[in-house]
Amino acid sequence: MSALSSSGSANNRDNLRVALVRTRNPLNIGAAARALSNFGFRRLRLVTPYDPAFREVRSAVGASEVLASAEQFANVAEAVADCALVVGATAARQREILHRLENLETGARLIRKRMSSGPVALLFGSEKTGLSKQDFSHCHWLMHISTASQRPSMNLGQAVAVCLYAIAGEKETAAAELPLAPASDLELITSLLYESLDASGYVHSGAEKTTKEKVRRMVRRLSIPAEEAETWMGMLRQIAWKLKR
Amino acid sequence: MSALSSSGSANNRDNLRVALVRTRNPLNIGAAARALSNFGFRRLRLVTPYDPAFREVRSAVGASEVLASAEQFANVAEAVADCALVVGATAARQREILHRLENLETGARLIRKRMSSGPVALLFGSEKTGLSKQDFSHCHWLMHISTASQRPSMNLGQAVAVCLYAIAGEKETAAAELPLAPASDLELITSLLYESLDASGYVHSGAEKTTKEKVRRMVRRLSIPAEEAETWMGMLRQIAWKLKR
Repeated sequence: MSALSSSGSANNRDNLRVALVRTRNPLNIGAAARALSNFGFRRLRLVTPYDPAFREVRSAVGASEVLASAEQFANVAEAVADCALVVGATAARQREILHRLENLETGARLIRKRMSSGPVALLFGSEKTGLSKQDFSHCHWLMHISTASQRPSMNLGQAVAVCLYAIAGEKETAAAELPLAPASDLELITSLLYESLDASGYVHSGAEKTTKEKVRRMVRRLSIPAEEAETWMGMLRQIAWKLKR
Repeated sequence: MSALSSSGSANNRDNLRVALVRTRNPLNIGAAARALSNFGFRRLRLVTPYDPAFREVRSAVGASEVLASAEQFANVAEAVADCALVVGATAARQREILHRLENLETGARLIRKRMSSGPVALLFGSEKTGLSKQDFSHCHWLMHISTASQRPSMNLGQAVAVCLYAIAGEKETAAAELPLAPASDLELITSLLYESLDASGYVHSGAEKTTKEKVRRMVRRLSIPAEEAETWMGMLRQIAWKLKR
């Protein structure tokens, strides 16, 4: 079925979605696509890329299959909706300490493991500012490449290549894990819980955005099993309905 | 002495010489230099680079320390003269079968080992043709990155980054398992959630016991972090209070 028929992990590799958020430089989109190709991955997602850049790279002579089939999304929530694990790549500065942070070696192993049971999203931020706090709130945890301290951050295309090398890993057949709820369910749970908190007077005026982000982050730190997501939604829907009546 | 004083391997890293042979694209020289910087290496050597390219990249605004101190050589023999181990990076095609070939993981380990006792050279060929047979003859062995078969060869800057990541060898700092909330917290969370469900009309008459048990079981499957238990309790307490008012 797959071009990677020689490798037993071909299908697992199709479970990785690499999402570039707000990328501006067409060279970087091209470099990321090439790295996917090199390591046998295929699914590239672009979240609000700088538009002329995306058109330029996609129409380039010799644009790869990966680029040609890249999907475009209006926001992070939609780009990760089908993924049960969402990981943000970061240069690991102060602001992210709210999130669990794994180094690349450990993170890659965890991602590989999760790819055996379903789709995983790996997010990369823009060249200038990386991922935002709001982007992070969609992530279960963050992953950073240990670089020398006080050195410039990595080039985007190189960071993607290094991460994918680590994730491709050696042939390793990880035991299947309990499937977790996809991001779309987590986002619905986040919204229902936030509604209830708001209706109950928990949310202070002016703190709406930070509270929503906090709730989103806390929900991602729970490991909600896929098979119980419906029940959680049903419970929260009932509570929210009653509170707003 | 070194900027990497926090790392015990600082001096060892100075033992790696990355040699770019006949590189043509100034962007690739810049990308290679950046990767050296990122992973704490410093010694870049250029063997007959395409001259205008080298001048361009070296004089670029913000050219790094690595680029400013890059050395230029007339041939491979001179560029590797001080090295006790010389390794050639290759996409591993037919012609190289005369040489011992290691994959990146094994090769990186061997290089790291040798770097503890003296200088090691790692050669990268030109973008178009890679290293020549003559270049290979200077190498003790060759190293290749296992990419997907029948895919394009790697971009030079990305290949350098991936190799240096592997050679730098991340310390796997097995992230301590996140402490989870104790059972007493989980039971309180269970009670608050059940109260809310009951007040919202979710619990059918006669099903009180089984619903309570279901809630208790589901809460246990969430792996609630210890540090966030208080916040969850606060949220649920507020919701329960509002519902019962």
